[in-house]
Parts: sequence; C-alpha cells; structure tokens
Amino acid sequence: MTSAPTRLDPALVDPATVPASDLAGLCAAICDVESVSGAETDLADAVEAVLRDQPHLSVHRDGDALVARTDLGRDRRVVLAGHLDTVPLTDPPNLPVRLEGTGDDRVLRGRGTVDMKAGLTVMLALAIELGRPGSEPVADLTYVFYDHEEVEESRSGLKRLAANSPELLAGDFAVLGEPTSANIEGGCQGTIRVDVRTRGVAAHSARSWRGENAIHAAAPILATLAAYEAAEVEVDGLVYREGLNAVGVRGGIAGNVVPDACTVTVNYRFAPSRTLAEAEAHLRELFTGYDVEVTDASPAARPGLDDPLAAEFAAAVLARTGGTPRPKFGWTDVARFAELGVPAVNFAPGDASLAHADDERVPVAELAVCRDALRSWLRGA
Amino acid sequence: MTSAPTRLDPALVDPATVPASDLAGLCAAICDVESVSGAETDLADAVEAVLRDQPHLSVHRDGDALVARTDLGRDRRVVLAGHLDTVPLTDPPNLPVRLEGTGDDRVLRGRGTVDMKAGLTVMLALAIELGRPGSEPVADLTYVFYDHEEVEESRSGLKRLAANSPELLAGDFAVLGEPTSANIEGGCQGTIRVDVRTRGVAAHSARSWRGENAIHAAAPILATLAAYEAAEVEVDGLVYREGLNAVGVRGGIAGNVVPDACTVTVNYRFAPSRTLAEAEAHLRELFTGYDVEVTDASPAARPGLDDPLAAEFAAAVLARTGGTPRPKFGWTDVARFAELGVPAVNFAPGDASLAHADDERVPVAELAVCRDALRSWLRGA
Repeated sequence: MTSAPTRLDPALVDPATVPASDLAGLCAAICDVESVSGAETDLADAVEAVLRDQPHLSVHRDGDALVARTDLGRDRRVVLAGHLDTVPLTDPPNLPVRLEGTGDDRVLRGRGTVDMKAGLTVMLALAIELGRPGSEPVADLTYVFYDHEEVEESRSGLKRLAANSPELLAGDFAVLGEPTSANIEGGCQGTIRVDVRTRGVAAHSARSWRGENAIHAAAPILATLAAYEAAEVEVDGLVYREGLNAVGVRGGIAGNVVPDACTVTVNYRFAPSRTLAEAEAHLRELFTGYDVEVTDASPAARPGLDDPLAAEFAAAVLARTGGTPRPKFGWTDVARFAELGVPAVNFAPGDASLAHADDERVPVAELAVCRDALRSWLRGA
Repeated sequence: MTSAPTRLDPALVDPATVPASDLAGLCAAICDVESVSGAETDLADAVEAVLRDQPHLSVHRDGDALVARTDLGRDRRVVLAGHLDTVPLTDPPNLPVRLEGTGDDRVLRGRGTVDMKAGLTVMLALAIELGRPGSEPVADLTYVFYDHEEVEESRSGLKRLAANSPELLAGDFAVLGEPTSANIEGGCQGTIRVDVRTRGVAAHSARSWRGENAIHAAAPILATLAAYEAAEVEVDGLVYREGLNAVGVRGGIAGNVVPDACTVTVNYRFAPSRTLAEAEAHLRELFTGYDVEVTDASPAARPGLDDPLAAEFAAAVLARTGGTPRPKFGWTDVARFAELGVPAVNFAPGDASLAHADDERVPVAELAVCRDALRSWLRGA
C-alpha cells in the first residue's frame, strides 16, 4: 500500500491569503507531519509541493533537503535556513500539536513547535509571499530546508548540500530559524571535548603502597576545573559566557585494585573570539603534564553583526521587536554558514530552553512578530 | 559416562612413607586435580578418600568441605585449615604443574601451587602422619578443607561449615595454610568499601552556569585521598600498614551535560587496632559533608600472638625457620576464625604476591620447612 504524498492544506498555503492567514494553523500543519531525524521524507515532500507551486521560485532537491531560490537580479542575496527534522516524540506522543489559551496568550504545544517548525512556518510563509507581483523583495532570497540536524554531524543535510552544491548556499547574509524568542542571537559558541588522562601503577589495594593511584592523580584536574573562572568575552558587541566542565569521569576496574588509569572528559564551550586551535591550546595549557586527547570539536561563529547587511537587518528587526541582539550559547548551523563565508544569525519564534523538552511549546504571537519583521526588512519597508 | 572417583596415587599417601616421601610429588598430585571454585568435588573426593583411610581420624563432609579430627583426649585442640579451590586456569592452561630447577632451587609451577595447594600438601601429610602409633601429637588436631574461598563471601564453604557445624571448628588455635613464604603472618587487615557521592544540578554544558557540576564537587574527595598519609599501626608486636584508596570513580551521562551526580568508591584497609565500626567512623569523618554509603566490609583480625599457644607455636616455628612474625596485609579466613573465637595465624609455603598470578610457583624446599616446623611443634619435639 502506497499512501498519497503528504500535502499541506491548500487553504493554509494559498498565496492570496497567506499574509493574512492564521500562521498558527500553518505551523500546526507542519508540526503534524512527523519528521523525526531519518524520517523527514513526508515533510520534505509536502514542503517541496508548496515551493514548486510558486512561480517565482526555482526548486532543487537533494535527498530530503530542499533549496528554493528567487532570481530577481538583486545585488544582494539573503539565505533563510532551517532544519526539517525533530527529536523523537514522547510516549505517549506529543503530536498532534494542541492550541492552548486565548488571544495573545495562545501557545502551540507539541513536538517540533520550538525546534524548529515555528521557524519553518515563517520561512514558508515568506517563500510563498515574497516574489509575487506586488510583493517583490529588495534582495534575492534562498530558502534552505534540510534534514538530519538533530543527529551526528556526519549525517547533516546542510553539510551534504554544502558538499554537493555549495553554489546553492551562497549569499551575503543568512538567517537561521533556530529558536530565539524572536530576538536576534548572533554567532555561536564553539565546543571542544577532550579526554584528560592520568596513569598509575596497579596493585592490590591491601598492599596499595606498591602501586600509584591514577584516580588520586586526577585530583589536580578536578581542582583546576572547580577553581576555573569562565571568561565573559565581548565579540562584536555581544557578551559570550564561556564554560569549562567535566562531563564525565571514569576509573577503576575492581573493588580491590589500585587503578592504573583514570579519564576525565572535559567540555569547553568557548566564545567566538577564539579559534578552535586556540581553544585546544588553552586546554593543553590548563592540563599541562597530563595526556590530553581531543575527541570532538566544532568551531565558534562570530556574531557577524558588524556586517552592513546584518546591521541593517538588526536595526529593522529591533525597530519592530525592541530588545538588543544577544549571544547564542548553543552550537547551531550559523557556524557552518560562517565556514562557508556567509555571515549568519539565529532569529525565530520559540524559547530555546524548551527545545527537545517534553512540553515544547511556542507562543503564537511570536510567529507573526518574526514573519512581519523579516518581511518589512526584506521588502525595504 | 561416569568416571571413576579421583584418587591420589597411593604411593604418595602411604602412611608408612609419607614423612619421608617427596612432598613435591604429593603437591603436584593435589594441584593436578583441577578445583576451580565451584568445581571442587573431584579434589574433595580424593582428599576424603585419603582421610577416611586414616584410622585415627573421624571424617565429616559438608558439600565439598571436609573436617577430619583426632580424638585423643588432649586438653588443647589445634585447627589446620585451607581452601580446596583455586582461581581459573590460564589459557593455555597452567596445569599440569611443572617441576623446574634442581636441588634446593626446585620450584613447582602451575595453578594453585601457591594459593594454596602447597598449604594443603602440608596439612594432608600431617593428617596422615600425626596420630599413628609412635607419632602422637601433643594436641588434638582438626583438619578443615573447604570450598569456595576465591569467590563471593556468601558462597564460602568455611562460612557454611561455621553455620552448619560450628562445634567441628572449635579449637584453641588455628593455622591457616595461606601462603606466607614459610613465615608466620599474624592477623589480617580489615577492609571496608564505601561509595562517597556528590550531587549537583544538571544543565546543558553550553549554559553550564545554570547547573552545578557534581564531578567538580568531587575534587576535595580526591584531594583528601591524595594527601592522606596511611598509618602504620603496631598490634601485638606486628606493624600493619594501612591504605586508603579510590578504587573507582564514575560520573557523567553525556558529552554535553553538566553532571548532577558523581561517585567515588573508596577502599580502606585498616589495621586490627580498629573495629569495623571505628573504620567506618574514620571514613565518615574524613568525608564529612558527603553522602557516604558502606557497600562491603570485613573486620580485621588481631594477630593473636599474645595467646600462649600462639606464642609457643611461634617460638617452635621460628626456631626452625628464623625470621620474625609479620603482619598479613590481605584479608584471609583467619578473620573468620577470630570471629569464632579461635586465634589464628597464616603459615604455609609460597609467596603471597604470586597468588593468582599466571606464573604462580612455589619453592619445593618450603614444603618441608613448613611440614617439619608444624610437626615438631605438634609432637612437642
């Protein structure tokens, strides 16, 4: 049995009505197409169908990733990007989404509402609207919907696109739809994980003076971590708060053996003022005399708000939303755009601290705030 | 198919020749009957057959444990005890045993030679000899051969005997055949294991200031252990060297999570000057402010060398072997005899540091040294 391709309700994606339409309804429709990492095809099909209906967009598909572009001959190009996948549902499932509350306090609750189908809703609404006669944007636009963001980096759909078709990701500035509660969050911290190891000499614990205890030898490592004062670093006007943490420790093989090995796994989240190499050097200096092995690392991204287009974007958004740009602490794909040479910020509805939470929920009002702020900037209004 | 019961070579256990016989041959015969813990039946059968052949012994069997007693009406009773089981063989197997070297430098190499079939050899030779006409001992004698010493304490054959037939273990003094290189090793250290736990508050490591790192909180625990100076305590003239060691540490659930729990497992080996309760109190004082849970504990045993019978034994043995009594650092069943009210010491051939080793081996000369020292004391010579 082959089911019909998943399609979104035509009424929700009607070009004639989408600017005024209920964005909550569109968001709910997107959320209710399950798209746990590795099973994004239904949602990719549905989004592709909507994009291909827009005569002002040319659409490219790569696996379950989609790139849709205007080609209006503008001298600047803005990329709007977001991932299609979500983390797994809860048990019982937190889908379909539920609309709760009334008026301005309405929230949409369920898997993906925050991370990041509210962002996809804003992207899709703009993709339908901007480029139609009478709604021309001042910049050319590229919409990137991609798969496999919530899993190991090697499976990333955006990474695959960047390898297969880097020209499709080119742009002067990118807005990533990761949740920011409708604030501009610039750049992202880098992250590096290292194993710091001690060695000793095994012995029976009844004759422990014949051995050297590798766990005891780790005492200065933990003392260094406990005493470490994480820096707060200003980069392009945003203050990043770093963090240095043991995220694991293990040692010992039996209850009567002086252990000859102990490993402390340390995660350093560092500000965009440091390169990955500098972050590693900092750790090696902190743990001089110990065996230090890097097990995982991703560079930070500068906020890029000193870029003229970014500054213009920030001014336009903030004129509508109030507030000031903030640093992004978690790692996001803005770092990947930065590596591609595209300055990028995070901007979308939803509280990032609810991402992946069982009670994930987004304020409906933020959908319109984000859509309207982006629309007015992109239309030069 | 049922194989014939295992029997030791009659020539090796002939009462007419055993005093002069080749103890190395008897030891090899005992070693070559495999008796890894849980599979002691063949060896128990073979030993039982020898014991039942001795008219001066009454024999009791409990599972794979054996108790053989003289009943000569002496006013003192000495217990000689040893376990039948060994740790598993190596791969390829370190049996049958091999006799290496020549003359006084001969060693018997293979599983069980040290721990503790050399001790069993001495016991069995004395069991055959002492009590025959012309070889009467000055004390009544109880020989205890038991199963399941090398595994968890709940399966101990000696513990089972003590529960089922405590009267069979009664005595004024006990000699345990654990390897001591033919020295008298008195008492044994106690051992107590505790889990010392810290608690924290979990958080994403990108926003670590929202959490409290339980691994960092363990830094003072490791510092206390690293700085601890283990005591040397004199008890009844023997100096016991204590030890306090982390034997395990574990914490952390994921590479991006500030951990909310960390556990350091600590093993304290303490001198017989402390009771178990005092040892626990010492640990609780050292780790004040932390959650401390006792997971395993066995009391120490005083050396008992102030007991008149022990002093007489020590004098008789040392007149033959030279040297002075030493403390026993590992935990042995002398502690169980002490709990039963029977002062006990360790005395047998073999270097305890080779126990369980792949290249376990015993000097043949020590077999006769131990047999002769015990015989002369028990015969009042």
